[in-house]
Amino acid sequence: MPQGKYSLLENIEYPADLKRLLPQQLAELCREVRDFIIDEVSENPGHFGASLGVVELTVALHYVFNTPYDRLVWDVGHQAYAHKILTGRRKFFSKNRKYHGISGFPRMSESEYDAFGAGHASTSISAALGLAVAAKMKGENRQTIAVIGDGSMTGGLAFEGLNNAGMEKPNMLVILNDNDMAIDPNVGAMHNYLANITLSKVYNRMKDELWGMTERAKAIRLFLQKTLIALKAPLLRKGNLFESLGFRYFGPIDGHDVEKLVKTLETLKNIPGPKLLHILTKKGKGYKPAEDNQTLWHAPGTFDRNTGVRHSHHSNGQPPLYQQVFGETIVELAEKNDSIVGITPAMPSGCSLNIMMEKMPDRVFDVGIAEQHAVTFSAGLAAEGKIPFCNIYSSFMQRGYDGIIHDVALQNLHVVFCLDRGGLVGEDGATHHGVYDIAYLRCVPNLVVAAPMNEVELRNMLYTAQLPQQRAFSIRYPRGSGLTPDWKKPFEEITVGKSRQLTNGSQVAVLTLGHVGNFAEQAVQKLAHEGISCAHYDMRFAKPIDEEALHEVGKMFTQVVTVEDGAVLGGMGSAVAEFFTTHGYKTQVTRLGVPDRFVEHGTMAELQAECGFDAEGIYKAVKLIMDNE
Amino acid sequence: MPQGKYSLLENIEYPADLKRLLPQQLAELCREVRDFIIDEVSENPGHFGASLGVVELTVALHYVFNTPYDRLVWDVGHQAYAHKILTGRRKFFSKNRKYHGISGFPRMSESEYDAFGAGHASTSISAALGLAVAAKMKGENRQTIAVIGDGSMTGGLAFEGLNNAGMEKPNMLVILNDNDMAIDPNVGAMHNYLANITLSKVYNRMKDELWGMTERAKAIRLFLQKTLIALKAPLLRKGNLFESLGFRYFGPIDGHDVEKLVKTLETLKNIPGPKLLHILTKKGKGYKPAEDNQTLWHAPGTFDRNTGVRHSHHSNGQPPLYQQVFGETIVELAEKNDSIVGITPAMPSGCSLNIMMEKMPDRVFDVGIAEQHAVTFSAGLAAEGKIPFCNIYSSFMQRGYDGIIHDVALQNLHVVFCLDRGGLVGEDGATHHGVYDIAYLRCVPNLVVAAPMNEVELRNMLYTAQLPQQRAFSIRYPRGSGLTPDWKKPFEEITVGKSRQLTNGSQVAVLTLGHVGNFAEQAVQKLAHEGISCAHYDMRFAKPIDEEALHEVGKMFTQVVTVEDGAVLGGMGSAVAEFFTTHGYKTQVTRLGVPDRFVEHGTMAELQAECGFDAEGIYKAVKLIMDNE
Repeated sequence: MPQGKYSLLENIEYPADLKRLLPQQLAELCREVRDFIIDEVSENPGHFGASLGVVELTVALHYVFNTPYDRLVWDVGHQAYAHKILTGRRKFFSKNRKYHGISGFPRMSESEYDAFGAGHASTSISAALGLAVAAKMKGENRQTIAVIGDGSMTGGLAFEGLNNAGMEKPNMLVILNDNDMAIDPNVGAMHNYLANITLSKVYNRMKDELWGMTERAKAIRLFLQKTLIALKAPLLRKGNLFESLGFRYFGPIDGHDVEKLVKTLETLKNIPGPKLLHILTKKGKGYKPAEDNQTLWHAPGTFDRNTGVRHSHHSNGQPPLYQQVFGETIVELAEKNDSIVGITPAMPSGCSLNIMMEKMPDRVFDVGIAEQHAVTFSAGLAAEGKIPFCNIYSSFMQRGYDGIIHDVALQNLHVVFCLDRGGLVGEDGATHHGVYDIAYLRCVPNLVVAAPMNEVELRNMLYTAQLPQQRAFSIRYPRGSGLTPDWKKPFEEITVGKSRQLTNGSQVAVLTLGHVGNFAEQAVQKLAHEGISCAHYDMRFAKPIDEEALHEVGKMFTQVVTVEDGAVLGGMGSAVAEFFTTHGYKTQVTRLGVPDRFVEHGTMAELQAECGFDAEGIYKAVKLIMDNE
Repeated sequence: MPQGKYSLLENIEYPADLKRLLPQQLAELCREVRDFIIDEVSENPGHFGASLGVVELTVALHYVFNTPYDRLVWDVGHQAYAHKILTGRRKFFSKNRKYHGISGFPRMSESEYDAFGAGHASTSISAALGLAVAAKMKGENRQTIAVIGDGSMTGGLAFEGLNNAGMEKPNMLVILNDNDMAIDPNVGAMHNYLANITLSKVYNRMKDELWGMTERAKAIRLFLQKTLIALKAPLLRKGNLFESLGFRYFGPIDGHDVEKLVKTLETLKNIPGPKLLHILTKKGKGYKPAEDNQTLWHAPGTFDRNTGVRHSHHSNGQPPLYQQVFGETIVELAEKNDSIVGITPAMPSGCSLNIMMEKMPDRVFDVGIAEQHAVTFSAGLAAEGKIPFCNIYSSFMQRGYDGIIHDVALQNLHVVFCLDRGGLVGEDGATHHGVYDIAYLRCVPNLVVAAPMNEVELRNMLYTAQLPQQRAFSIRYPRGSGLTPDWKKPFEEITVGKSRQLTNGSQVAVLTLGHVGNFAEQAVQKLAHEGISCAHYDMRFAKPIDEEALHEVGKMFTQVVTVEDGAVLGGMGSAVAEFFTTHGYKTQVTRLGVPDRFVEHGTMAELQAECGFDAEGIYKAVKLIMDNE
């Protein structure tokens, strides 16, 4: 850190220090915070654009409000870097998202300034309402603030929260951080609506009047506030979606004018009831390359801060990302099968449906952050004979769970669920690990639960899933790279419920599901060198489980190890345990996978090792069995 | 059926027959349909008020639209009786909700007129959007109509659907059936908003102009439509929540004026894009007792149609409903523990939180149909030290699943989830059976998964769950009666993860979870009479599972039967199988519960017998084991 580069910031550990600055110093502090984020994230990758966009807001919030007594709830939370830096965590920031370092998201267990934990979108209004109502019940006159992006605002949960808050009417402030983006550009009717508000002359005139006047002396300001609000209410109440829902609407104002933000928040602090402040910000603000390509710079990896060149880890001849295999394969399939359509809730670039979107724009639907709708909309399409490939990250699919059961499986519709980011996802940590899907899907009737061990298997599962004889079909695959540079093989149908045996052996059977089969291959080889003979089955399907193979295994082995990148309670290993105990096989089963606790962040390798299902973990598990035999 | 009582209706099997009537005959047909519903439901219980409220709408829809080519999607579906009666199912209506009879909800497999299946709320807009978009893609110029109540409109999924439809802009008509009610009176800011619209003079003038004018000749009508819409748009667009979301809003109009409905629908049929028609109806319309107490008459059971007296099956000295035990016990607990609050998403009377609501109105929150919000709002309350008892029916909790994981368990918050209607629910059928909860909750870390065998156990679990040392805690209990008339015993703490042994035995161990333990008791007694000695454990907890007891069982028994009123894949029996295979017990496990298929409707006893976990099923399972030994 060059001397003086952070002359204000280096004296700020906590908001109390920040409050000592003069309002006119805050813009300079914002520059330093922004610089600090650029410095840090260029070397230690993380979320980038979102945090740059709310630097002024964050500074203003901690300047005006009495945190942590006043409660500040960040929606999603990947925009909370400035918040972390200003609330005691600047010195730990180089360990952001690292194993045993601080989380990239707000965590209640990490700081009293994190009033509520997050990671998924659209939770902040509901959580903040809970905080605000509890404060009211306890007679505590605290302020509660939720900061939510326009992307998150499309999630049904946010609407449910607004609808309930507009009835309960506690003191709470929702700040709508409108930057036109989720990770990809924001979509939906509400998006158009917000754009209309922003362009509307009525609103701009109103805000100028309101906020211009509030710069006068305090006595007159308070008087004017009341008058203006009284004047404004009947005019705007019917004219605004948020006012329809019982919120007082203010804005839109420039979210990068920190002094104006401070004045506005000071004013709003004194207005009771539920309020919504609409601010306009730019994702990536203050770093040109990030402003210019906001999707790419949502989480850019490491980069050269001076040139803006991102350090790519990917080159030709390397194995592809599973995401790329999905993205290219669905295009190949859709070219042959007219019925195929693609659905994504706001993740076209993350899941690679953007490839199909570019080639067949009419056949891909980005429905915004709306997982429930993505599932039920897919069901509707399928009821008319379309074959929707509904791609949702495993941990976000928890939101669509009822739709899977009630709208797809029960209706016996042909929807293909592609659960991206299945398993431990690494640095995003506990909120994003997709580790419950095998358990929560396995109990659903009519549903196939598949997971490919590699890119070719993924291709073939995608191919198989769209064949006319199939119905509800789920395929989960992990974040990141496979291991087959030469993966574009001709399609082959896979028999549903059929495993494949990769290694013959006599002492221990290792049954794996998904990419972890590759770890098992390494372990089995190493064990073979030591004279331990393992049979390795890639199960391919957690449901229907391959009963023929399990009878074979049950007859031959007294020791079985199951491996999956998912919860060991209720997962594929559990299906194996169910089978053996049902059929009276006296086989001991060691279930490797994600143990029954929340796993924090770190690299995928670190976390897989911690959970004990990497190659070394599998090796050790078999060794332990052999030692005890 | 007295001769002539249904002189119009008896000649109508399908909508084609209906279309032969003159518009002025439709009101008479509505009277007959309503009479028919009253006749039938008074003798064969089912949903009542909702269907009476949409008789005119149903007749008008089938009169105007070309069903089944035009697609009609009913939200929730318990208002679809008139629809069923007019689409080929009048003669089967006496078997409505009966075992092997027709479903009480729309089912695609039952009729081509049921364009999409339902049971849960708020799915219709998303599903209809899927149907409409698919039609557009296929170049089929069909109409797609979703009928949704104002109660269902508060669900986030409905908002997600509106937001996406307003962007996709296909031809579709959403009919907002505004009757001010869910099962209980509707709540939330949107409810107030709809009331405001309805009372607004501007809207009423607009509608009168619009609909008055459209009664003229067709040529002029079309012209006026265009003009009026053009005139209306700028005035109303900003003034209406639905217009904000890209829908053209029409209404509100009287939903009991069938001729006006017909004219209105005829007009709307020719207007492209997404449209919302707001109609005002009365739940229970045409049957005075049902109009006067809409909650009671949502599903009243059998009644005397002439006197309006409901046939109560409950009397003093009988065992209480589990719901009543919950409702009275939470009041007792809340009187002693100030931190306890109650949360329900629109089910205060169904789950009996209305008892607490009456006594402590400030401590119960009915958040409307909004399960996700109910969970995350509870999390917010808990983060401030409240102890929310969040009561959600098991099958609806599928909606709140992400919140359980992400907002409660991960944050390690003290929320008590009360999963009412856990297990097979009987006549409501496949959409309402709460049979996946044990499986989908068991994989979630930090969460206790409990189920009481009787009323006293439920009381003690509720007591235990609110003790300060607890965190996330779920308790599931079934629909209907327990078996302990004298259930108000002093509270006793239950050790979490501790089972209780009810019967000693030596040949087979029967491990049960929840109310089904009573079936096992009967079976065990009967087996004892035949000289078969069973040990019976009431497991109480699926998680943490009682490992001490399982070691005991594993050591003593080679044959174990597990029984639960839930999916056998991933449930409590699966936990037992996991345990035995992990620890090398060579114990065979017969898992009784809900098999891996969707179970239809019937009485609870019929369905439990079908699934084979009633007393007789348990008896037979043990006998089979003994025969094979």
